[in-house]
Amino acid sequence: MKRPIITLLTDFGTRDHYVASMKGVILGINPRCSLIDITHDVRPQDIEEGAFILANTFSYFPKGTIHVAVVDPGVGGPRKPVLLVTRNYFFLGPDNGLLSLAAEADTVKQAMELTNPKFFLPRISATFHGRDIFAPVAAHLTLGIRPGVLGPKLESWVKLDLGEPVATGSGLTGKVFYIDAFGNVITNIREHQLLQFSRGRSLVIRAGTRSIRGLKKGYCEGRKGALMALVGSGGFLEISVREGSAQKTLRMRRGDKIKVVTD
Amino acid sequence: MKRPIITLLTDFGTRDHYVASMKGVILGINPRCSLIDITHDVRPQDIEEGAFILANTFSYFPKGTIHVAVVDPGVGGPRKPVLLVTRNYFFLGPDNGLLSLAAEADTVKQAMELTNPKFFLPRISATFHGRDIFAPVAAHLTLGIRPGVLGPKLESWVKLDLGEPVATGSGLTGKVFYIDAFGNVITNIREHQLLQFSRGRSLVIRAGTRSIRGLKKGYCEGRKGALMALVGSGGFLEISVREGSAQKTLRMRRGDKIKVVTD
Amino acid sequence: MKRPIITLLTDFGTRDHYVASMKGVILGINPRCSLIDITHDVRPQDIEEGAFILANTFSYFPKGTIHVAVVDPGVGGPRKPVLLVTRNYFFLGPDNGLLSLAAEADTVKQAMELTNPKFFLPRISATFHGRDIFAPVAAHLTLGIRPGVLGPKLESWVKLDLGEPVATGSGLTGKVFYIDAFGNVITNIREHQLLQFSRGRSLVIRAGTRSIRGLKKGYCEGRKGALMALVGSGGFLEISVREGSAQKTLRMRRGDKIKVVTD
Repeated sequence: MKRPIITLLTDFGTRDHYVASMKGVILGINPRCSLIDITHDVRPQDIEEGAFILANTFSYFPKGTIHVAVVDPGVGGPRKPVLLVTRNYFFLGPDNGLLSLAAEADTVKQAMELTNPKFFLPRISATFHGRDIFAPVAAHLTLGIRPGVLGPKLESWVKLDLGEPVATGSGLTGKVFYIDAFGNVITNIREHQLLQFSRGRSLVIRAGTRSIRGLKKGYCEGRKGALMALVGSGGFLEISVREGSAQKTLRMRRGDKIKVVTD
Repeated sequence: MKRPIITLLTDFGTRDHYVASMKGVILGINPRCSLIDITHDVRPQDIEEGAFILANTFSYFPKGTIHVAVVDPGVGGPRKPVLLVTRNYFFLGPDNGLLSLAAEADTVKQAMELTNPKFFLPRISATFHGRDIFAPVAAHLTLGIRPGVLGPKLESWVKLDLGEPVATGSGLTGKVFYIDAFGNVITNIREHQLLQFSRGRSLVIRAGTRSIRGLKKGYCEGRKGALMALVGSGGFLEISVREGSAQKTLRMRRGDKIKVVTD
Repeated sequence: MKRPIITLLTDFGTRDHYVASMKGVILGINPRCSLIDITHDVRPQDIEEGAFILANTFSYFPKGTIHVAVVDPGVGGPRKPVLLVTRNYFFLGPDNGLLSLAAEADTVKQAMELTNPKFFLPRISATFHGRDIFAPVAAHLTLGIRPGVLGPKLESWVKLDLGEPVATGSGLTGKVFYIDAFGNVITNIREHQLLQFSRGRSLVIRAGTRSIRGLKKGYCEGRKGALMALVGSGGFLEISVREGSAQKTLRMRRGDKIKVVTD
């Protein structure tokens, strides 16, 4: 029998007892689970960042993987705890947009609100649904319960809007939507959108006051310390500095505009 | 056959090779073990902090779990390496109080000093008992050795004293005993002690120069940026700021007094 | 059937999606793998540091473990992706010296360049060989493929030169080659080299402007706040401060000289 896989993504950090408590709860219900941390270092309560990381990761896991994500400023309030069943995966978390980017990329087949206390920890704290609701529900799913027993079906769920790049006559305007630990500045402009826009012409990327000519194939093509543009491993246009930080060079933040024009 | 679970809690950080060496040693003896990190980011040599995190986590794991904890300023000195067998768990670590808070909450049934080199790594360094003693002993326990073969029985072990809140005529005085990564200020006052003290009256929590009226049920009830008091997920009174840090607002440190009075 | 073990060492950090993507790829090919993080906090692109951590860790894992290491400033460039098969282990990573310290300590039996796309992810990004090449090759190795099918044999590979201590008439001169999270300053002088040099005489260690007399057996022998020298858990001469940081006291950096003389 295959070992079930549960991934965890939170903004809890790894210094405290929060993440380990969730793991303990899961293993207490099904000790056969493989637990994989996606990250616990999402910026506190930053739903967009969590959604981006989940969307970049979920599809590499085998079919049937259960993805649990908790970035949840509204814990204990009216936002619903939900399960989204997609073509290949299960997504558990708060209904605040965190799951939507990933789940919708895999096509949502079924959505349930989690209301059945039979699958929760016996005593539910108002502040820690990760441990008290999402972890035990994830573990019960690996034991083969049907999603239908968890609560009522939902017709809709909160969707996160990260914006699409806008093509104008003179260019394609997107925005910075993630900055990774290496200082790579990742935009919301996808490779196919670049190709469609360029139609074979060479490109110039305008970021702040700087212009970057052409796209590199890999980090190694850049000169040390110089800005370069390339399509990163996630399929998005990004700006990098070889052995340096594009974020520091450009002083850009998430949300800043990036414009692509032809040469 | 069930997969044995070993948890690890240390102050080693995750940048160096220390934690991975312990995991390698365990898997070298029993590759079937599931290894779960509780945390490796206990403040260096902070036994109290380690004890608190362990006490908040251990009980969520299934019966039979082996908890290995190493925060050990006295490594290589006269402090004993010990095993505490409790009602449901095994605790391995230095006899410096680190284990006592958790182990005593589960009732200690048996305590042994670890002296039998048969269950250690062949070559024991004076500075790394985590890898050389605790990891291999944990792995051997999963193979079914009896605790009695590990060394002589102990009649007592070092206990950590975190203090109990004190009820006076006018109030209940506790102290800050943990501050988590979100800046939540957690006290040593338990929910049942609050209930016993309030007897239905409404409460005011005094922290530094600030007074907080009443208890919230969850983080979402607080106004953004305002101080609130609530019983946190561990069952202790805590002070929080919604989308902010109570620690920064109050400038409190571990050990500072918190007083609860009636309105 | 034994569960295969794959370890991961990178400079990717744990905030982003990079490490989890590698794990997803591995589990997608063989969900039975046990995945163990060595560290993901190697200083960005610091091949020496990664090599040192790997060399201190690999041998604690059971025979047959597959060690995947990715610190790879030249990704996408001419450096080769390689497999080094040693007496007891498999090492996968870029051919830039990262693997050599560990692999050669275990004697390299076979070296292959990874060129067969059958064992890669279908679409290979120019910037993320960890996910697209090393992770899937590691997973396929656990399914029993022969190394020979991965690509052509290599006669040589890039070796990392960390230098050996130099014995002169008056002393033994080594250098700082790692500083751990506790501020312990670790040198490239091994225990047997110290013994050979001292021939029973007592030693003085000169670090910067400071002299340290004699070797301690363990951290607990040092006075609080004072410098001490000892042979650390990895078998190298190191300088420590009990409940403090030798690095801060000495203001030393990697590469600085350390001289051992007799008293």
